[in-house]
Amino acid sequence: MMGRRHGYGTENLSPFDLSLAVMGTGLLWVGWFGFNGGSAGAANSRAVLAIIATHLAACSGALTWGAIEWSTRRKPSVLGMISGAVAGLGTITPASGFVAPWHGIVIGIIAGAVCYWACTWLKHRFDYDDSLDVFGVHGIGGLTGTLLAGVFATSAIGGTAGLLEGHPRQLLIQLYGVAVTFVWAAGVSFILLKLVGLFVPLRVSREHELEGLDISQHGEALQ
Amino acid sequence: MMGRRHGYGTENLSPFDLSLAVMGTGLLWVGWFGFNGGSAGAANSRAVLAIIATHLAACSGALTWGAIEWSTRRKPSVLGMISGAVAGLGTITPASGFVAPWHGIVIGIIAGAVCYWACTWLKHRFDYDDSLDVFGVHGIGGLTGTLLAGVFATSAIGGTAGLLEGHPRQLLIQLYGVAVTFVWAAGVSFILLKLVGLFVPLRVSREHELEGLDISQHGEALQ
Amino acid sequence: MMGRRHGYGTENLSPFDLSLAVMGTGLLWVGWFGFNGGSAGAANSRAVLAIIATHLAACSGALTWGAIEWSTRRKPSVLGMISGAVAGLGTITPASGFVAPWHGIVIGIIAGAVCYWACTWLKHRFDYDDSLDVFGVHGIGGLTGTLLAGVFATSAIGGTAGLLEGHPRQLLIQLYGVAVTFVWAAGVSFILLKLVGLFVPLRVSREHELEGLDISQHGEALQ
Repeated sequence: MMGRRHGYGTENLSPFDLSLAVMGTGLLWVGWFGFNGGSAGAANSRAVLAIIATHLAACSGALTWGAIEWSTRRKPSVLGMISGAVAGLGTITPASGFVAPWHGIVIGIIAGAVCYWACTWLKHRFDYDDSLDVFGVHGIGGLTGTLLAGVFATSAIGGTAGLLEGHPRQLLIQLYGVAVTFVWAAGVSFILLKLVGLFVPLRVSREHELEGLDISQHGEALQ
Repeated sequence: MMGRRHGYGTENLSPFDLSLAVMGTGLLWVGWFGFNGGSAGAANSRAVLAIIATHLAACSGALTWGAIEWSTRRKPSVLGMISGAVAGLGTITPASGFVAPWHGIVIGIIAGAVCYWACTWLKHRFDYDDSLDVFGVHGIGGLTGTLLAGVFATSAIGGTAGLLEGHPRQLLIQLYGVAVTFVWAAGVSFILLKLVGLFVPLRVSREHELEGLDISQHGEALQ
Repeated sequence: MMGRRHGYGTENLSPFDLSLAVMGTGLLWVGWFGFNGGSAGAANSRAVLAIIATHLAACSGALTWGAIEWSTRRKPSVLGMISGAVAGLGTITPASGFVAPWHGIVIGIIAGAVCYWACTWLKHRFDYDDSLDVFGVHGIGGLTGTLLAGVFATSAIGGTAGLLEGHPRQLLIQLYGVAVTFVWAAGVSFILLKLVGLFVPLRVSREHELEGLDISQHGEALQ
């Protein structure tokens, strides 16, 4: 609805500062313990299990993404590893509190592989711009994790049995949830953006974009 | 007593690195929870109320400062928003533990507006240099908060009734405290600086200042 | 076994970004509370004493290193102070949980002085390259702290009496431990590096080293 950034595909649009990106990922990682652990609503063993699964998924997501980069282009990158960590965090979220710690490792590996594929093959196939890979990492990751929750859910931990415990119906329920979420999020976003676009432009002018939003919108340079 | 920086008013003396300024503000913000919450001397509900009021004041201070910048020069800045957050933190401090959470929001709004005024109008009116706006943000903010504590103090929370609970005398007590603090801080600082100035110069040489203190005093560049 | 970096001694190989170094030290410092305090295995008074001794040793190590720089070359540096802090942390570690808080201050002062000596005189005397001063700060610091634990160990705190409590045998036990550790660490490292070196080179090519490992190994620039 907004179109791609000017220069997308022809100019270098790599991150401004990788050190800041790594620090931001570290803050996200720690904060995610509060997010997933806190969803237990109490400082109990379910919160502990959610936090452990979250941590392990972030670790295995980062290692998986780095390993894929290593094997495909011989250069594992820190940007890839932090993308993999966030992919692991996003993907484990619907399942944490329902699965065992080792499931977190498996889910993180799947997250790293699927989100890597979404940020490379899928993105180029549909040729869309996504400056922070939010769709590839959070969208595809969240979708994958919601389905995997239906696979790995362990009744001894969260009270719900998944596919592996002989309850395939849970996977269908998760699939239904994914479909409803997708239609709702896409539909409501479409309506809201159309509505907002009636009053203010959704995008800055071409001059402001080329000048950079820090300067044109906030009157300051980062450094 | 030290005079202004060389180049003040004629050269660009903006912050070296806004990313570091934002991170520093984040550390201050979190640390302030320990400062104001810890003043309760125990992990009790008064500590919780102090922390909530502190957090809300920082938020509303940041939003207020940004909104003023937006409405006056169309460009809200991150430097303005972190200044507003610190203004909110400084201003709520004397009142936290004595007021309700929603008072924190009101105090933060007042803090953002008053400290913005102090860092712009007041600073230019008296034409002093203040490289970190310590007087405008911490001085004026602390003074304002000490008075506002006398307005909003709620006996059900801190055991002291303020103006809004029909106890105007508390505001006079706070005003007296502000006056004594002002005279004491200004007077003792004056004496101490005069005393120290007898033994070592209060200011580096003009050459060292223009070269930069990192290089001239510490022999290292930040980056 | 790897040889020195190209350009060592002739080119400027100072840290890339001191701000990041200071932040990294802050993260280490906080993490070290978990490391030394957590070694008590419980949230008890021994953990508290270990954390206090750790904090005081880091502080006095930083101040000592800065003071030595100040007195020898008139310019205390932030790189020196964070080196001193890490020296204090590394040195107190074997002793924390066995000594009183004020012993932490004394051990930190010794750590700052001994490690400063190791990173300046000793390093130049044996003319080795150590890009992060790991041997000078962690190696010499850990060795010194292991011995000092035998001096300051207080039976009322950790159940073990040291030299100062009239139990010189403990110092000999610590010396024995240091010797065994030194031989083991050097010997096993030698064997492992020789073994690994049979399969992959221990060092990147000269071209890659001069290009920088960020670019040549990971395909990305830090900023």
